[in-house]
Amino acid sequence: MSGSNLTYVGVVAIIGVVALIMAWVFRREVLRAGEGTEKMQEIAAAVQEGASAYLNRQFKTLAIFAVLVFGVLFLLPGTAEIRIGRSIFFVVGALFSALIGYLGMWLAVRANVRVAAAARDTGRDPAMRVAFRTGGTVGMATVGLGLVGAGIVVFLYRDNAPSVLEGFGFGAALLAMFMRVGGGIFTKAADVGADLVGKVEQGIPEDDPRNAATIADNVGDNVGDCAGMAADLFESYAVTLVAALILGKAAFGEHGLVFPLIVPAIGALTAVLGVYITRPRANEGGLRTINRSFYISAAVSAVLSVIAAFAYLPSSFAGLVGANEAVAALNGDPRLVASAAVIIGIVLAGIILSLTGYFTGTEHRPVKDVGKTSLTGAATVILSGFALGLESAVYTAVVIAGAVYAAFLLGGGVTILSLFAVALAGCGLLTTVGVIVAMDTFGPVSDNAQGIAEMSGDVDEKGAAILTELDAVGNTTKAITKGIAIATAVLAATALFGSYTDAITTAIGEVGGQVANVASFGYEIVSPNTLVGLIIGAASVFLFSGLLVSAVGRAAGAVVYEVRRQFREIPGIMEGTGKPEYGKVVDICTRDSLAELATPGLLAALAPIAVGFGLGVGALAGFLAGAIAAGTLMAIFLANSGGSWDNAKKLVEDGNHGGKGSDAHEATVIGDTVGDPFKDTAGPAINPLIKVMNLVSVLIAPAIVQLSVGENASPAVRIGIAVAAALVIVAAVTYSKRKPIALEAADNDKAEPAKVG
Amino acid sequence: MSGSNLTYVGVVAIIGVVALIMAWVFRREVLRAGEGTEKMQEIAAAVQEGASAYLNRQFKTLAIFAVLVFGVLFLLPGTAEIRIGRSIFFVVGALFSALIGYLGMWLAVRANVRVAAAARDTGRDPAMRVAFRTGGTVGMATVGLGLVGAGIVVFLYRDNAPSVLEGFGFGAALLAMFMRVGGGIFTKAADVGADLVGKVEQGIPEDDPRNAATIADNVGDNVGDCAGMAADLFESYAVTLVAALILGKAAFGEHGLVFPLIVPAIGALTAVLGVYITRPRANEGGLRTINRSFYISAAVSAVLSVIAAFAYLPSSFAGLVGANEAVAALNGDPRLVASAAVIIGIVLAGIILSLTGYFTGTEHRPVKDVGKTSLTGAATVILSGFALGLESAVYTAVVIAGAVYAAFLLGGGVTILSLFAVALAGCGLLTTVGVIVAMDTFGPVSDNAQGIAEMSGDVDEKGAAILTELDAVGNTTKAITKGIAIATAVLAATALFGSYTDAITTAIGEVGGQVANVASFGYEIVSPNTLVGLIIGAASVFLFSGLLVSAVGRAAGAVVYEVRRQFREIPGIMEGTGKPEYGKVVDICTRDSLAELATPGLLAALAPIAVGFGLGVGALAGFLAGAIAAGTLMAIFLANSGGSWDNAKKLVEDGNHGGKGSDAHEATVIGDTVGDPFKDTAGPAINPLIKVMNLVSVLIAPAIVQLSVGENASPAVRIGIAVAAALVIVAAVTYSKRKPIALEAADNDKAEPAKVG
Repeated sequence: MSGSNLTYVGVVAIIGVVALIMAWVFRREVLRAGEGTEKMQEIAAAVQEGASAYLNRQFKTLAIFAVLVFGVLFLLPGTAEIRIGRSIFFVVGALFSALIGYLGMWLAVRANVRVAAAARDTGRDPAMRVAFRTGGTVGMATVGLGLVGAGIVVFLYRDNAPSVLEGFGFGAALLAMFMRVGGGIFTKAADVGADLVGKVEQGIPEDDPRNAATIADNVGDNVGDCAGMAADLFESYAVTLVAALILGKAAFGEHGLVFPLIVPAIGALTAVLGVYITRPRANEGGLRTINRSFYISAAVSAVLSVIAAFAYLPSSFAGLVGANEAVAALNGDPRLVASAAVIIGIVLAGIILSLTGYFTGTEHRPVKDVGKTSLTGAATVILSGFALGLESAVYTAVVIAGAVYAAFLLGGGVTILSLFAVALAGCGLLTTVGVIVAMDTFGPVSDNAQGIAEMSGDVDEKGAAILTELDAVGNTTKAITKGIAIATAVLAATALFGSYTDAITTAIGEVGGQVANVASFGYEIVSPNTLVGLIIGAASVFLFSGLLVSAVGRAAGAVVYEVRRQFREIPGIMEGTGKPEYGKVVDICTRDSLAELATPGLLAALAPIAVGFGLGVGALAGFLAGAIAAGTLMAIFLANSGGSWDNAKKLVEDGNHGGKGSDAHEATVIGDTVGDPFKDTAGPAINPLIKVMNLVSVLIAPAIVQLSVGENASPAVRIGIAVAAALVIVAAVTYSKRKPIALEAADNDKAEPAKVG
Repeated sequence: MSGSNLTYVGVVAIIGVVALIMAWVFRREVLRAGEGTEKMQEIAAAVQEGASAYLNRQFKTLAIFAVLVFGVLFLLPGTAEIRIGRSIFFVVGALFSALIGYLGMWLAVRANVRVAAAARDTGRDPAMRVAFRTGGTVGMATVGLGLVGAGIVVFLYRDNAPSVLEGFGFGAALLAMFMRVGGGIFTKAADVGADLVGKVEQGIPEDDPRNAATIADNVGDNVGDCAGMAADLFESYAVTLVAALILGKAAFGEHGLVFPLIVPAIGALTAVLGVYITRPRANEGGLRTINRSFYISAAVSAVLSVIAAFAYLPSSFAGLVGANEAVAALNGDPRLVASAAVIIGIVLAGIILSLTGYFTGTEHRPVKDVGKTSLTGAATVILSGFALGLESAVYTAVVIAGAVYAAFLLGGGVTILSLFAVALAGCGLLTTVGVIVAMDTFGPVSDNAQGIAEMSGDVDEKGAAILTELDAVGNTTKAITKGIAIATAVLAATALFGSYTDAITTAIGEVGGQVANVASFGYEIVSPNTLVGLIIGAASVFLFSGLLVSAVGRAAGAVVYEVRRQFREIPGIMEGTGKPEYGKVVDICTRDSLAELATPGLLAALAPIAVGFGLGVGALAGFLAGAIAAGTLMAIFLANSGGSWDNAKKLVEDGNHGGKGSDAHEATVIGDTVGDPFKDTAGPAINPLIKVMNLVSVLIAPAIVQLSVGENASPAVRIGIAVAAALVIVAAVTYSKRKPIALEAADNDKAEPAKVG
């Protein structure tokens, strides 16, 4: 690598460090805010304790898994340098992901009480400021660690960087997936359980301290929506960057290892801008303020990226050092191609933002229509939200596909350039991640602040109204983040297809086969074995979603029976003279969500192994394509259905169609409960799922080839591995079907719930 | 074609005619049964009138569409003979589809009252016999018309038969899709509407004559479940046969145009056997009786197919006259390959039967578990049924994929043989269609019989109990049919991929391009444009499902407001002194379902045109693959979720978890209502959707190539066609979002429903 390019990489790493410093600055600002009354602090402490305990246990569980994967990775083909580097940076990626998740949780459980205190003591704008600064901290840390990590790999490994980056991305994605799954089950088990007994059966408000599940519900917001989400977005950042660097090197040579770092570095700077300019104007809704910051920082990113492209890249493809031959032979201007690709990504982020806002916001027709269907009962609420989710998923998916196609056209017929353009569009998306994380964290922090206010009873009506408004804004920002996250999954996965074919071509060359033989592996989509892979890939997404939804159902059932038991057995609980045992519910959620973690995790990691070793690399390509297509649609469907039900409920609670306590309200509460695991468990976990499956495939592709052709070919070993992987999946799924605690309770508990409300 | 082969085709056509004669025999037997009391006949007459009126209006609407397509088909490339034959047989296929649908409806509305009368006067076994003979009539007619139609095409067109068969299959599939969509919306709008006001709001039983929607509900069973299903299964039969004949000719030459006719002809004979041996034994559940007939006739089909293969096919591939060169060069025995492929199909049918029975039957754990979740409310019922649907879809899809893969392996590395084997597996499935249609028709006929019994009040408790049992059996048989139908879609669609590539290769040759150029069209699944097509293909399935579910929601809303209005405005309706205006609700359902017909129909027909002409044949291949994968999973998910909710409700109604009237019951009623459009509207329509999309793609492929390469290439025309198609879709979807009647009513109707129950 040339000296000047090394300098650029160094600058990027320094920007990464600057981002980390900014994270520290924002963090200090959050912690300096007032902490409210003693009672508020007491509640916050209980939440802090539960959240830390859960994450610590989760990390211990995951450490075993990480050690296993570390070993397996080391066994995969490659030079010693690559194998060592890949395994080590796998651990680094996983650690960074865990760190971001932990930080997200740690700060959120401290910010919530401060936001509540600010709403109580100083008003809306300071409250919003604390909440948004919390998100800013996590956002800057995400961006900073991503840039520093990737920068170091490029700096240390140079030409071998792509292979090592695969390990880094895989570590980040795997850990994030587990955090999404575990946290997602925890948060929704507690939330659904609390709502079913509290709101529906006993008719007491959300976050009522008489409900034994309230502390668990608040813990859940932090371990799921904060820790899980932060890890997930870090993973999106890392994997997209990894894909761009791998393809950049293949297409553009050295320039391609640097430019994909410059673009998100610009994003780091504009994210700081975005966080600082988020100041509510008079009489302006919170969402408007946040949206304005997003659009301004996105526009600045676009302009700066174009400038960077023109300053850094040569004016002809021939001027790229070490570029792909077909790329070097192209006429045209690489600066234009690169600029256009980045802008496609940024524009995509903007469109997703407004599409999601339209479909899940309370002020637009879709959610209003769902709200109206509450007049004909819960069934029509479910049906209308279900249809809304399906349809809106289509629009978002088509927009994402359109962005991929536009980037693909930029390649001018050269596949590797098309793929790099897709990856660069991903980098364009990344420039918005800092602000996006800040927006997302905003949601659970406001939600928690509202919980603390309600439980403590120390915040007056005016303060409560402020927190309710911030919570509603948070609902929409959360849906937006999920849309952006899944878009990164599609772009990164599409781009990683390039690495996949590349890995296979190289491996075939190494075992002495002909590269032309790749065709005999049956990549053609019209071949039945590819189609079989495709169906299985799409099926994995359905299975994964189904497993998560039923895991939440099971765990929530256990919570329901526990809370009902406490209402029955603890005297004076409804009158406020008896205190519920909050810790028991936290324990149930912790135990159940960790127990439910393994099955979806094993499915994600082992399904590509079973398909790839069993049916070959063509079927595995089909598998990935099927998982991407079905995953994109399923993820957005789940997020938007859930979001629309949640906000339809808010519409009714705001006094429409009969308001609180009406039949219409009860109907929307059922809708919201159904939506909970959709939008906060299954939906968001699909993004890291797709990345994990992709990276596993890229990593195992050479091994599959080695066992399929050449002198080491061994169908027995190959099929053996596939069968073993398939059997583990079957065993895990069967295990998850063991008699669930909740249904056991159902067998014993003949008592009908006492309806009070 | 050799004289002996012509003789075989003639024999097959004669078997087809025999099947039609058997249909007539069964029909006479049904009509000879007693018609019950005057009141029962009066109700039946109202249902007959409504159903005929609806179908007549629907056919008039569709005739316009058919004329349009007839013209467009004629414009597509091909020799004059092919173009004329294709267009004419398109009309024949559509007419046959309509005819079968009409017959299914016509006989069902006459059989229902006779089943009710038999249950009243003579007992369970005669009632079951009438219901099953009704199904037998439709089943034999389906099989007969399919064989006669395909036989005539092969007889008349010989070498040109494949192209003409595409028209025949397309006509059948297109009409069936519209009948599924229109009938599906009608039946569920009436059913959901009736339940929401009757069961949930007023607490009166199903089919209570005080409910203004009851007649419409019963009409719906006939136009949706009977007419739509019959047309759908005819279409499955025709398209699978078409795919097998096209590939048979390409792979096996003349023998391949005959053997795929022989196998279903055997099925026609064994179906007669199946219908005759369906006699309940003492103390045996109805489902057991039907299953036994299914398994016996399937086993006989398998044995006879093997005998036919060994009697008809030569013992070496070289012995096949006019076979594909690569196939002729293979070692091995074509008789073994053909036998194995057919058996794969038959075994697949058996596995789907038992899987579906396991996941939707009341006696197994999955539905029992869904039933238990009713103790924690409607939300957990929805969640558990949703998860059950997702998971069970995976198992069925993986089994189907396994069958495709097994058939693929039979090809011994020769793609065309693999594809033919897949198609032959489809023919194996077809041997069971006669019995399957009989099983399916059983469901709505028993359902209707129960309705007539309830409304007339003329059937005593014992008779009612018989009808309830038959209805529950019908629920499971209906779910099974859907599983089999979607399996035919996958097998036919996979096989048709062969025709698709073939069409493209031929077209490229004709315009003077190189066949090797096909690769430059980017079939590779790892190419971004293929992936874009794939995402759009999967998205079409989501959009189609979303449109249908929301159409039902809208139409059901309109029914709810009308029924509520009648309860309010007609005096004495609750006391039984005032008579509801049944006709008004029938009119609403008719109007709404025909109005909602266009959008999904246009989407199905135009989406492949937009993708194919806009993004090329590679993206179109991806589109089809995406639609197949997502469609398979979505169809089974919707069918099984819906089936499980319906039967969970039955479990509670049988006295579990509190029984009728309990909170648990209310929760399962909500689940059942959500499931209605899943299992009877959106789910079953996906099967013909996939086939329509596939056949459109096969038909337009040569035109896309002509506009892409060679001297007639014209990007402007090509893109123009794509944009026009896309704009029509957008316009249609926008139109379907017009202010729906129900929501208008919601704006005006401030009155909360008066809760009586």
